[in-house]
This record gives sequence, structure tokens and C-alpha cells, in this order.
Amino acid sequence: MLPFFEQLAAAVAARGNAVCVGLDPRADHLPRALLESSGSLPLEGRAGEGGSAPKDFTTLATLYGTFCREIIDVVAELVPVVKPQSAFFEELGPPGVAALVEVIRYAQDRGLLVILDAKRNDIGSTAEAYARGMLGRDSPWGADALTVSPYLGEDSLTPFVDVARERHAGLFVLVKTSNPGGGLLQDLEVATNSERAGASRPGLPRRVYNQAADLVERLSTETAGPSGYGLAGAVCGATYPQQLAELRAAMPHTWFLIPGYGSQGGAAADVAPGFDERGFGAVVNNSRGIIFAHARKEYAEWFAPDHWQDAVAAATKQMIADLSPFSPRRVAGGTPHPSQ
Amino acid sequence: MLPFFEQLAAAVAARGNAVCVGLDPRADHLPRALLESSGSLPLEGRAGEGGSAPKDFTTLATLYGTFCREIIDVVAELVPVVKPQSAFFEELGPPGVAALVEVIRYAQDRGLLVILDAKRNDIGSTAEAYARGMLGRDSPWGADALTVSPYLGEDSLTPFVDVARERHAGLFVLVKTSNPGGGLLQDLEVATNSERAGASRPGLPRRVYNQAADLVERLSTETAGPSGYGLAGAVCGATYPQQLAELRAAMPHTWFLIPGYGSQGGAAADVAPGFDERGFGAVVNNSRGIIFAHARKEYAEWFAPDHWQDAVAAATKQMIADLSPFSPRRVAGGTPHPSQ
Repeated sequence: MLPFFEQLAAAVAARGNAVCVGLDPRADHLPRALLESSGSLPLEGRAGEGGSAPKDFTTLATLYGTFCREIIDVVAELVPVVKPQSAFFEELGPPGVAALVEVIRYAQDRGLLVILDAKRNDIGSTAEAYARGMLGRDSPWGADALTVSPYLGEDSLTPFVDVARERHAGLFVLVKTSNPGGGLLQDLEVATNSERAGASRPGLPRRVYNQAADLVERLSTETAGPSGYGLAGAVCGATYPQQLAELRAAMPHTWFLIPGYGSQGGAAADVAPGFDERGFGAVVNNSRGIIFAHARKEYAEWFAPDHWQDAVAAATKQMIADLSPFSPRRVAGGTPHPSQ
Repeated sequence: MLPFFEQLAAAVAARGNAVCVGLDPRADHLPRALLESSGSLPLEGRAGEGGSAPKDFTTLATLYGTFCREIIDVVAELVPVVKPQSAFFEELGPPGVAALVEVIRYAQDRGLLVILDAKRNDIGSTAEAYARGMLGRDSPWGADALTVSPYLGEDSLTPFVDVARERHAGLFVLVKTSNPGGGLLQDLEVATNSERAGASRPGLPRRVYNQAADLVERLSTETAGPSGYGLAGAVCGATYPQQLAELRAAMPHTWFLIPGYGSQGGAAADVAPGFDERGFGAVVNNSRGIIFAHARKEYAEWFAPDHWQDAVAAATKQMIADLSPFSPRRVAGGTPHPSQ
């Protein structure tokens, strides 16, 4: 079995694109046709809001599973990877978690790699418990890769790294996130005399995210495979293209997961700096823009409500086309060697 | 219904101590008597490790539930609050999550407050999904309070704050953690010219954890109730007593959750700076030292293996005694007013 990022490089080469479809089901955004065909009444309000909304989380979890499987059926042959957002499943409690696990397995059965976006973080044996529970296809959650949060420092990441190495799984560590408030801690400038600070780069202030980036790059350098990338990836938002370029240069062994494309404002030109010259080194996530494409004006005009899956396909193909200038040439058949 | 930290202050006053019992079940630490009485064979190896270990996570989840309920039965009348560690339940997948939810409800039925230690973090509607799923007794996970991680900044905390306020629930934001590596990001000194940095205190360098602390204190000041404490607490480790004292002074409206007591090396004198002059303002967590007391040399000599619950009681009472110099006078009967 290949390490995760070798699998990812091969899958990106095979599909000829680096699009990641985010699976973020939400009760109030599900296609009406899906609710009707499943025999469910349209739901009023959000899950858990109380009031007149039904609180039947088991029914909603089943709907989330159906919705995600339908999307997977559409995108499985188009893109290399999907990213379920754990929060929307966890919101429903135990039946939501069960539905998430089924969605992960279904995507893998259809040939997709799966990044579980759960942003877990803890220390020592507690971090190890998350890692053992979630990383690897034989684990209870079954993810190929997991997002993790770095505030607790290196000894909080080591247990994830150890389990990922053992199970050929991957990690994506939050480094520079796409949200406007992410800078509160991440962009703080580090005092040059701070005893823990790493080396500064000429002409650039050293910020907290550089410290996180250096740690992740070191973990990936130590574990780099034939593609040049190691087992620790980094989350770097599409909404900060300048920082993305800076980090690409500083982290040559680190694969990026780039959120913030589409709904959050990132465009194709913004994510371009994330790729290496082979078209590797980054996957670009789009959640709402693809899975709820039926509600986007430009698609709603073209596709009837009961053909919402066609809107998903169209939005996916559009994003693939938008990213094509930075994508690897599609390698027909077989498993291409990522270093070609 | 009172806000969470008013409930916590009242519970601390009623029990006369601020001990939090951490519920961290682990397959390889369960009392042998529990395995035997439940008809389970002793488990070889850790959950998920494969090899010859049984991978029956449903059985293990049932054992975790039984183990935690037995502990709750022992400590319910002794301490104000328990803290289940989500990772150990999540390690088992969906049956583990179901067991966790049952443990939370059981503890509350026995009169305990429950802090779910899950260190969740995300942005916008995703953070809101975690908050809606986990905060408040009517939510699917049902926690009274939740630990959250601040790397994503203020707009990642706001959704948790909004839901906590609506549901009279509480938060504990990671500020200064107890692990040796926590300093990698948390202790970085902030450049005085950094445009985002808050005000420095005379004679003290400003570090990343101060920035997190200021944010949390502001959120708590805005929501402070009669006890003086607001809805955002802070996690501050027992292993750094100097920083604990500094943060107590800087965060007068913020209740602390202090991990690192016992097994991680923190002692009673180390946690003393976390308390205000009324004995409020902090709960001190102990997990392994209490729940696996049967394996501690000093208790194993006194209690037969099939009386492991007595070791739990003894360790709890010992910790209460150790903390008594900083604890409020126990208020007999009724619900005491915390500001007395």
C-alpha cells in the first residue's frame, strides 16, 4: 500500500485535476426533490433548533447519507478526493456519526480518497486515540486523511504522525486558514528575540503561521515519498494568495488542502500559487458551490429541480475547467508515476 | 435556568470543592474485576491495534459505559463536575459515541455537571453545527460545557458563544495547555510592533497565549453573571503555575479548567493561583489518578481488586483534601449564592 500522498498524487494525475468535493450536508439546503423522493416532508428550520422543526435526527442522518451517496455517484469519476465535514454529521449525534462512516466507506468503494475534516487536536494518548479511531481504512471512522489543529504544539501532532505512518494515512494541519478572523493568532508577528522562534526569511516578518508551517514541513521532509511529499499536509486558505505563495516556497514537501474556493471568495488565480510545476502539491476544496449547485442561479436556470445531480456534475466540471491551467495532464489508464 | 458558570459556582459551593473527575476510559486500563463481572475476557492490546486483540468495538463501548457509570455512582455526591474525554469514546466509532452520550446523560441524572472535552474548532456555520450538536442538555450530545480550540480566531469562537448563551451552556477555550510542547505556538513572544497585538503588561513579554487570553476574557466580561464569571472559560495547565497566576490576574471574569494535576505532575500548590479569594474561578481535573486509582501502588495495597470503586472513592477524597486550603466552605443544603 502506498503512503497517502503517493495515492493522492496518483489520483490527481489519473483524474487530471486537483478538485476536492466537500461533503457538507445541511438540513436546510437539501434539494427538495431528494426530500420528496425519500418520503420526507421538507424540514422547517435547522437541525436542533427546536420550535416546530422535527428533531428526528435518525431520519435526517439517513437523508444526509442518501444525499452524499448521490453526489459521490456523480463526482467519483471526475475528481480524486472528497472531504466530508464531520461537524454536520456530528450535529445529529450518534446516527449522524454512523451515517458519516457509511459515506466514507461508500466514497472509497467508488474509488475516491477521503479526507475527514474534523480538526481534531489533543495531547499524548488522547491524540493517539483520535488517530487510531479515525485514520486508515480499517479504523472505525475509516478516513484516508484527517485535518488536525496545531495550537497544542508538536507533541500533540506526533501521535497523529506515528499512526498515519503506520497506516499509510495522511494529515492536514491547520496553518493559515481562510476565514477573516484567522489572523488573530495566526498572523501575530513573532518577536525576533523570542527564544522559541524559528529562522526568519529575508524581508518577511515571521508570524505564528510560519512557526506552524516550519513544524509541518519538517514532519513532511522526514517522511517524503517518491512524489516528494511527506505525510503531513497543510491547510492554507484560498483567500490569502500571497501567503499561499510564501508557504508554497517555504514548504516544498508539504501537500496543501486549500479551502475557501468559491463561496468564500477564492478564485482560480488565487489558488494557482499552491501548485508545484507538475500540477501537484495542492487539492482545492469546494463544498457549497458544488453540492448545492442546484440553488445557484446560473444552474437553477438550466436544470430542473429533480435533476439536481446534473447541477452537481456541471459545477464540478466547471471547477475542473477553471483550474485546468494549473492541473497535470491527465494520464490515461493505469497508475501514473507522480514524479513524471 | 442559570447560565453554566452560575450553576458551576453553585455546585462548587454545595460540594465544597472544585474537583473535576476526568472520564477517560481505556481498554488496557479497565479493572480486571469489571471485565470479569461483565463476562468479557480480558482484552489484549489497545482498541484498534489489530493483531490478536478483539476488534469488537460494540462490546468495548458497553464496557466503557459500565465503567463510567460505576465511577459516576461513586463521585456524584463528592464532586461538582465530570469531564468525559471524547477521544476515547470516538476511538470506538459510532458505538463509542452512543456510549458517550449515555454517560453524559447518566452523570447529569446523578446531579453532576458535564464538561465534554472534545476540543472542537471550525469556522462559521461549521462551528455552529458543532455547537448545536453538543451544547445544552437537549442537544444530541447533551453537554453542559465544551472545550474548544482557538487557532482559527475570534470568528471561530463566536458561533460557540452564541449557542452557549442561548442554551445556558459553557465553553472552555484552550489558552495555556499542560503539555511540554504546548509552548511551540502558545509561548511565542509577540513583536511589540505587530499590528494585531493587544496591550502588554508592564514587565511581562506578550506571548501568543496572552492574545488568546484577552479574547476569552473579553467574551466572558461581556457575559458575566452574578458570580462574576462569563460563559467563556479557559484551559490553563497545572504544570505552569506562574502562567496560571499571571492569567488569573489578567482574566478576572474567566473560570479556569486546570488539567495536568496528578499524573502530569501538577500538585495542589501549583493549582492554588487559579482560584479567586472565594475558592471559585477554577475546577481542577484529574483523570487517571482517580479513575484508575486501583492500579496506583498506594491504593492497590489497601483495596482488593474487586473493590476498585473504593479506590476511586479514596483517591477522590484525597484530592478534595489536598485542595481544601483553596476551596470554598461547604454550604449545607439549598443552593448557595456564589457571591457570598
